[in-house]
Amino acid sequence: MYNSNHSITDVETDDVESEVGESTYSRPLLIKRVNVTSQIALVGAKICPVESLDYEIPENELVNEDWRLRRKIQVFQYVLLKWAFALIIGVSTGLVGIFNNIAVENIAGFKLLLTTELMLKHRYYKAFMTYAGCNLGLATLAAALCAFIAPAAAGSGIPEVKAYLNGVDAYSILAPSTLFVKIFGSIFGVAAGFVVGKEGPMVHTGSCIASLIGQGGSRKYGLTWRWLRYFKNDRDRRDLITCGAAAGVAAAFRAPVGGVLFALEEAASWWRSALLWRTFFTTAVVAIVLRGFIDFCSTGSCGLFGQGGLIMYDISAAKVVYSVPDILAVILLGVIGGLLGSLYNYLVDKVLRTYSIINEKGAVVKIVLVIMISLLTSICSYGLPWLATCVPCPDNVSTSCPNTDVSGNYKSFQCPPGHYNDLASLFLNTNDDAIRNLLSTNTAKEFHISSLLIFFGAVYFLGIITYGIAVPSGLFIPVILAGSCYGRLVGRLFEPVSKLDNGLFSLLGAASFLGGTMRMTVSLCVILLELTNDLLVLPLIMLVLLISKTMGDMFNQGVYDQIVKLKGLPYIKAHPEHYMKHLVARDVVTGPLITFSSVEMVGNIIHALRSTGHNGFPVIDEPPFSDAPELCGLVLRSHLLVLLKGKFFSRDKVLARNETLRNIAELDFAKGGSGKGLKLEDLDIKEEEMDMHVDLHPIVNTSPYAVAETMSLAKAAVLFRELGLRHMCVVPKSRGRPPVVGILTRHDFLPEHILGLYPHVRYRK
Amino acid sequence: MYNSNHSITDVETDDVESEVGESTYSRPLLIKRVNVTSQIALVGAKICPVESLDYEIPENELVNEDWRLRRKIQVFQYVLLKWAFALIIGVSTGLVGIFNNIAVENIAGFKLLLTTELMLKHRYYKAFMTYAGCNLGLATLAAALCAFIAPAAAGSGIPEVKAYLNGVDAYSILAPSTLFVKIFGSIFGVAAGFVVGKEGPMVHTGSCIASLIGQGGSRKYGLTWRWLRYFKNDRDRRDLITCGAAAGVAAAFRAPVGGVLFALEEAASWWRSALLWRTFFTTAVVAIVLRGFIDFCSTGSCGLFGQGGLIMYDISAAKVVYSVPDILAVILLGVIGGLLGSLYNYLVDKVLRTYSIINEKGAVVKIVLVIMISLLTSICSYGLPWLATCVPCPDNVSTSCPNTDVSGNYKSFQCPPGHYNDLASLFLNTNDDAIRNLLSTNTAKEFHISSLLIFFGAVYFLGIITYGIAVPSGLFIPVILAGSCYGRLVGRLFEPVSKLDNGLFSLLGAASFLGGTMRMTVSLCVILLELTNDLLVLPLIMLVLLISKTMGDMFNQGVYDQIVKLKGLPYIKAHPEHYMKHLVARDVVTGPLITFSSVEMVGNIIHALRSTGHNGFPVIDEPPFSDAPELCGLVLRSHLLVLLKGKFFSRDKVLARNETLRNIAELDFAKGGSGKGLKLEDLDIKEEEMDMHVDLHPIVNTSPYAVAETMSLAKAAVLFRELGLRHMCVVPKSRGRPPVVGILTRHDFLPEHILGLYPHVRYRK
Repeated sequence: MYNSNHSITDVETDDVESEVGESTYSRPLLIKRVNVTSQIALVGAKICPVESLDYEIPENELVNEDWRLRRKIQVFQYVLLKWAFALIIGVSTGLVGIFNNIAVENIAGFKLLLTTELMLKHRYYKAFMTYAGCNLGLATLAAALCAFIAPAAAGSGIPEVKAYLNGVDAYSILAPSTLFVKIFGSIFGVAAGFVVGKEGPMVHTGSCIASLIGQGGSRKYGLTWRWLRYFKNDRDRRDLITCGAAAGVAAAFRAPVGGVLFALEEAASWWRSALLWRTFFTTAVVAIVLRGFIDFCSTGSCGLFGQGGLIMYDISAAKVVYSVPDILAVILLGVIGGLLGSLYNYLVDKVLRTYSIINEKGAVVKIVLVIMISLLTSICSYGLPWLATCVPCPDNVSTSCPNTDVSGNYKSFQCPPGHYNDLASLFLNTNDDAIRNLLSTNTAKEFHISSLLIFFGAVYFLGIITYGIAVPSGLFIPVILAGSCYGRLVGRLFEPVSKLDNGLFSLLGAASFLGGTMRMTVSLCVILLELTNDLLVLPLIMLVLLISKTMGDMFNQGVYDQIVKLKGLPYIKAHPEHYMKHLVARDVVTGPLITFSSVEMVGNIIHALRSTGHNGFPVIDEPPFSDAPELCGLVLRSHLLVLLKGKFFSRDKVLARNETLRNIAELDFAKGGSGKGLKLEDLDIKEEEMDMHVDLHPIVNTSPYAVAETMSLAKAAVLFRELGLRHMCVVPKSRGRPPVVGILTRHDFLPEHILGLYPHVRYRK
Repeated sequence: MYNSNHSITDVETDDVESEVGESTYSRPLLIKRVNVTSQIALVGAKICPVESLDYEIPENELVNEDWRLRRKIQVFQYVLLKWAFALIIGVSTGLVGIFNNIAVENIAGFKLLLTTELMLKHRYYKAFMTYAGCNLGLATLAAALCAFIAPAAAGSGIPEVKAYLNGVDAYSILAPSTLFVKIFGSIFGVAAGFVVGKEGPMVHTGSCIASLIGQGGSRKYGLTWRWLRYFKNDRDRRDLITCGAAAGVAAAFRAPVGGVLFALEEAASWWRSALLWRTFFTTAVVAIVLRGFIDFCSTGSCGLFGQGGLIMYDISAAKVVYSVPDILAVILLGVIGGLLGSLYNYLVDKVLRTYSIINEKGAVVKIVLVIMISLLTSICSYGLPWLATCVPCPDNVSTSCPNTDVSGNYKSFQCPPGHYNDLASLFLNTNDDAIRNLLSTNTAKEFHISSLLIFFGAVYFLGIITYGIAVPSGLFIPVILAGSCYGRLVGRLFEPVSKLDNGLFSLLGAASFLGGTMRMTVSLCVILLELTNDLLVLPLIMLVLLISKTMGDMFNQGVYDQIVKLKGLPYIKAHPEHYMKHLVARDVVTGPLITFSSVEMVGNIIHALRSTGHNGFPVIDEPPFSDAPELCGLVLRSHLLVLLKGKFFSRDKVLARNETLRNIAELDFAKGGSGKGLKLEDLDIKEEEMDMHVDLHPIVNTSPYAVAETMSLAKAAVLFRELGLRHMCVVPKSRGRPPVVGILTRHDFLPEHILGLYPHVRYRK
């Protein structure tokens, strides 16, 4: 608590240090706590632009008053609005998905048409210049958008969404500018021929849309309804963003059930049955929007967009009958997928670390990197097909061979009439069409083994070096490309003993590589099912996913988890680490602890808000308001700011809750969008008001979750994680001490923090 | 705490009452607490044969010691064993599913063959006697098994499994005898021609198998490994049973992904990503086992089992192209499904209440009820087809018409050659075949509208009155039967404007009725997809499920929730009720509270165990073991019994933890199967030992989750539910009082209990 004749830090640091001293010999452990201050600084520096989210709805008098009103009038509207939001998210994500697909197909199609035409005229050098020039232009455009407008839009976006749903709001990750760049950057990036997908960016786009809708309009322009404020809290926003992420997957893969499962398995950290139901509705809306759009485009009104953009691989021509050798082949695929997948993750991590150093040097350097990768990609795509020999066209094909249109299995490239270049069919196509060619059935001999090997190598390494440049880039497509490529290779290997179609092998290869990198199971399985529309392969896909995930998990984490960690986002895992059992809650409490009295001096509050970055402060009831000091509850920085802005001050230290409650309704305690809330600088407190008092009771959350200081840290972590808390009070066990020992936040549960304090605890059994 | 010169009940009741008295005017509410004692008695009586489960792994010194050993040696085995268990559950459930199907198809097929043969000879009376006689015999057998051996096996079993996974172990619901009766009772019941399914019972069967495996062998016959004890706790058992439930659905519907989603959406109350992964493995195993079996049976080695038993409806012949009128039809189906579904639930509830009164009268009465329903079913099945007129066979059918084999679309019944009786094709078939006939495509005119109406009426009402008799009876099949029936009717209605096939309408009807009764979404959607193997209907199925669930939710709960409530199982919902915000934790604490001193007299413990049914007791550290009384932790009845059995007693009140810990490893603290643990009567404490002391420290869970007495009840409920607790300590807020105010258990959070204490709180805003 505050005494006016002490400076804050002095008192509090002492307090904490004594706590710390006590804890080291309170348990029969040989654990030495290392120097605290340096450690905090280090952790603090790393996670600076991150805000933790609070999924607990505070229960203070104000909210209870508000809730009473809400029950009377607005519960029905609230529920209705939830569903309306889900509908809007579904429709907008679906429309963005459509726009994205039409744009990519038209831009990339135009580029490929130009190149093909020049090739047919044997003007090979000019064709390359055109091809590489188009790629370069589009890539630079994408990179410029990313570098100058919204750096947060680079990359997949799934790790950030995952972190958000775990309770970490990275800086501007869901801002409108990010949304804008994500949409257009993704279109230009994919059209530029990079080995990147538009699936991850779609997930991010869906989440951004959901977040924008959850903002409830712009307060600046008066575009907001008062009762939208009920959505302005982290919990409702989280639910909306979960729906958005699911809608993104649904729009990217045309997989509504897969979208729900993706949100459930990979994206979300908390889940409720009611949310399942709402997410499902959102993805159903997306499916219907896409369906309508496909009907519309089938009349030819979407330019070069044919069957192309929305992935849907038809393997139904393949007969799924399998026997023992096929199972062996599937097991082999699983093992390969696990090994290549973990290697992929390892290399992506290394490359990302290198790029993050390069990218720090400024926007121009970022763009230069993009240009270099773009040139390399163009050279590979255009140069490598020259290594392939021309193959005579097969007789019994339904499509024309060689075909000269945008997509298609048989690209003529430099070949004489009646021949095709199999490598060009893979390289000089959009990624979606390349996958479609690889997954095509009844085309066992279409691709040379050497061509497949070259393509696999190129795609594997281009995929690794492309992720991390300043362009929105999904990981699904590179992984599916490489996977289906080696799947076909394995299929050729097993040709003598297996009756499975090569297209099926391709699919299983894609599944195995996906399992090996992303380590998802059920959601991948369903997404692949929805992509291929054939349930008979289900057991094989399940088997291959099980094996590749298990193999991969032996070496490292899934790629998204790895990126989350690399970005320094304080992600809390579902399970506490085993060494947390040997520590207790007070062991990781770090100071200085700052508490307020329940009727506090304005100056003290201002000073505390200014001198620390804390977001929650314990409030102590002291005599005369109680018999002895006792914990009244927890007050949030944002609520304090609003209360101070309202200036409900009184000269003396008296209770004033009734006046405050009567007048406070005009103020908005709802949480604004990220970075939009009231700031300390917005307050205008006069010097004479600094000595006045303010009654905090109306805004104190009187039911904060608290643990005893001797609670095992593992159990405290479970409580913190399961309930989605931002602050947790630690209360003393013995009597005659201040009623609160400290506050635990997300950072206190991070392995880095704990192992920083107790480096040797890791090795304890 | 205990003073030897007080009797237990006196002290503690007083303590609690004073607490209660205080609480009524501690909050500015006009809530009056009503007479406590009568209320507890009432609640207690209702829920007597139920045991709460504890999903918290206690952290006491003993477990920590044990865990240390476990980390060294057995973590790998533990993980391996988890997966081995999943494998075993998958294989056994798959095999049981196969056995069930072969048995049903053969028994019912034999019965139907006999009947058909007699019909062909025009010996109609004898045919009826044979048919009804077979049904009666099978029904009586099933009822006798249920009534005499395992009454818990009656009904679907899904509500009980759902309750178990919520933390309520109903008496003998997962016992081996229940498993036995469930398997054979279900076979006889389905073969007896009842309008029941084998799907719900399969879920229960899977859970029983999982529970048995989790038992870790029989200790009585020495069939157990020592380290299997790590699975003998509620948490690991819960995980196994979740896998079992998923495997059951997978085996029943041949829907592995649907099984996982069913477990996730309907069955489980807690979910972890790791569990998703393991459940998925289990259902994949089931799918592979079933696949092998189907390959085997396709050679004709399974008797009358043809394509029949394992449901798989092929609607792929139908073209899925839909337009506006089809959407209208789908919306209409959804509305009908919601209305009929909620009416169904309402009627099932009423019938169950009536039956529960009848069934209480004893086993013989139960069997008589079954016999009556069996006769009624036989009369309907055999009698109603006479109302149908004979229809001439269509020309362009691939199968023979009329066909005389077991299944088939065109039953001749009493019709002349070249004609068939459409109603007999539905009634005189197994339920699976009837569904297959209803879902058959390109058979628009096969069934008369009048026949469909008659069949719908009969199935709807037979389904309602059959559920609740003493036979294992699933709800899926009756619901699908009735739903697909009115689906076809709506299809006929929309014939002039819709291009959708009648088989598709049937499927959508089934979906709508399922959604209207069971109120599931994603899992039903996936199950139906896996049943029909056609992803193109997905958007329509989603739409119809959304509408029917929404409609149904306006009137009442889902049928399983309703049954859980009817059975008086203390199920805790995911969300606290709104009125819990107006109460605090101490408001619902009911006495008497019994605490132990950390070194307690044996006699006191024995007395407390004998005189109360409590399963958790707070332990207080008192001088000389601490400066002032403070909460040491929580001790479980089962652990106390083991400690007492070990007789680690000392004459004086001294700490003895080291000796105890050294010797205690021989004892088994693992939790036995339900009803298998150590009982008070198993102890053999001599009179002179009653005055000795025992040190409870080694077995005290020193990190129990606790809330302050002023914590809002809603927040306490969230904590209790999310962490899966059995006991929660309530600690005082102010000083100078005993260190624990009371214990909250599952029953304290039930609406009945709270509204019993505070009847008027329900109406508070």
